[in-house]
Amino acid sequence: MQAIDRLITEIKKKNAPIVVGLDPMLSYVPESVKAKAFAEYGETLEGAAEAVWQFNRAIAEVVCDLVPAVKPQVAMYEQFGVPGMLAFKKTVDFCKEKGMLVIGDVKRGDIGSTSAAYATAHLGKIKIGGSECEPFGEDFATVNPYLGTDGIKPFTDVCGECGKGIFVLVKTSNPSSGEFQDRVAEGKPVYERVAEKVAEWGEGLVGEEGYSAVGAVVGATYPEMGKAIREMIPKSYILVPGYGAQGGKGKDLKHFFNSDGLGAIVNSSRGIIAAWKQEAYASYGEEGFADAARAAVAAMKEDIASAF
Amino acid sequence: MQAIDRLITEIKKKNAPIVVGLDPMLSYVPESVKAKAFAEYGETLEGAAEAVWQFNRAIAEVVCDLVPAVKPQVAMYEQFGVPGMLAFKKTVDFCKEKGMLVIGDVKRGDIGSTSAAYATAHLGKIKIGGSECEPFGEDFATVNPYLGTDGIKPFTDVCGECGKGIFVLVKTSNPSSGEFQDRVAEGKPVYERVAEKVAEWGEGLVGEEGYSAVGAVVGATYPEMGKAIREMIPKSYILVPGYGAQGGKGKDLKHFFNSDGLGAIVNSSRGIIAAWKQEAYASYGEEGFADAARAAVAAMKEDIASAF
Repeated sequence: MQAIDRLITEIKKKNAPIVVGLDPMLSYVPESVKAKAFAEYGETLEGAAEAVWQFNRAIAEVVCDLVPAVKPQVAMYEQFGVPGMLAFKKTVDFCKEKGMLVIGDVKRGDIGSTSAAYATAHLGKIKIGGSECEPFGEDFATVNPYLGTDGIKPFTDVCGECGKGIFVLVKTSNPSSGEFQDRVAEGKPVYERVAEKVAEWGEGLVGEEGYSAVGAVVGATYPEMGKAIREMIPKSYILVPGYGAQGGKGKDLKHFFNSDGLGAIVNSSRGIIAAWKQEAYASYGEEGFADAARAAVAAMKEDIASAF
Repeated sequence: MQAIDRLITEIKKKNAPIVVGLDPMLSYVPESVKAKAFAEYGETLEGAAEAVWQFNRAIAEVVCDLVPAVKPQVAMYEQFGVPGMLAFKKTVDFCKEKGMLVIGDVKRGDIGSTSAAYATAHLGKIKIGGSECEPFGEDFATVNPYLGTDGIKPFTDVCGECGKGIFVLVKTSNPSSGEFQDRVAEGKPVYERVAEKVAEWGEGLVGEEGYSAVGAVVGATYPEMGKAIREMIPKSYILVPGYGAQGGKGKDLKHFFNSDGLGAIVNSSRGIIAAWKQEAYASYGEEGFADAARAAVAAMKEDIASAF
């Protein structure tokens, strides 16, 4: 089954259009988890990577029955060098084992042959001599469109071959996203031009549930633009970052969805994985960080449901 | 000394505004190198990564006295998963040991806090408990501007703190680069808007040689645009991909340089590292792949000199 169909099936089953962003800063990891990792590997990249992996594992264990997907942000692993990339890979594998889909938030994008290598790295398989190996093996990847169609095509090719999917950056959640994305170019803002291409790139990759393998990233922090983009690309899923810590609220999200209640999946990172540091979840204590994350998922589910 | 000043010093010393793109596809690696690696590690990601690392090492050994810098394209390593990232790290370390600067061609870019993690990963250091570790440690990184200033600022912050530099994608070398980059937005194409920002982002980061730590990527395949951008950002170095295999020629390159003969550095990847596969260098044979690369560097140096 195609990744987009598996994602929709899980969203329906768990009744949760929610993705947990596994973006562990070291400051989110409880001291006890760090102390144990540092005792084994020292205050090194290996030690930090081990702490992050144990933190992720504990959270994935307790949220896997509630959410359809996780979205590890690869930057948070790259900052720990090669050991960090190993923690990323272990996280991807473990979350898949636990029945969740994995959206690699990698925002890659390059010229054709290089994009092909990125697509292989994150969604595909690579031939080595007579064998075939899977480098990182996510189900979806986020992709940057600045280089145009020939930077995207290698990704859609791999989506077709391997039943994977992508989310293309259309309108990002950050304050300065308008600097280039909102520029009105020949009658339309650049982000709308990108949205039009998202629809085009997804043609021929529509799954059984009616949605294509090519989705869009649109920040919760720009609800009006979300509404306009929603209408432009009815067959594309929208991955919505910027909920919670970045300022987006449940009531802002309704128009990111289609009238069938599908079409969007909302990410929260800090708001869930660092819930134990918030006053609202203080009663869980440091040791209860995973249970605090679970409670934050439940609260987020309710908040989003309230939008309808 | 700041990275941009070290780069200019090396360019002058070696009289070569040239960077060798270490973008090893497995098909560029001679059978004998692969056979040895596969014998030790199997036809696995580890085996492929070892082959690529040995290939890079042999080339770096023989070009290090001729060129100021190398530019490993991280996608070519990511496609071999975690072992590939280790080969990337070994390549970065070895090239630095050999006196070359390293431009990590990573094209990262994200919202603020995430860009900060990428900047740390590739240019900075990270605090882990009481110690400070260097994740990948390149001298420069390439950066994607689609998210605007708050995606770039964390990189320029690290450039300031650690004496590193970035090259921001302005006009890329690929055929479809115009799809969004050339859109005329409020009187100017998007790539010119980005170029204006490159100048702005570089203010306050100008080194002793008069160039800033914030450079631009402009493809050799678009010489007219290169000329216009050159005039817009006199204090920024331009990293020029697209020479050779992608179609750019020495005579196209003159206007990427300032009148002082500085201001640009031209990349060639395939044309150098896979020179042994070209008819012109067939006499070197498969075993002579590194010497063929050295000869291709010498020919490129001559071709670029002929532009002046």
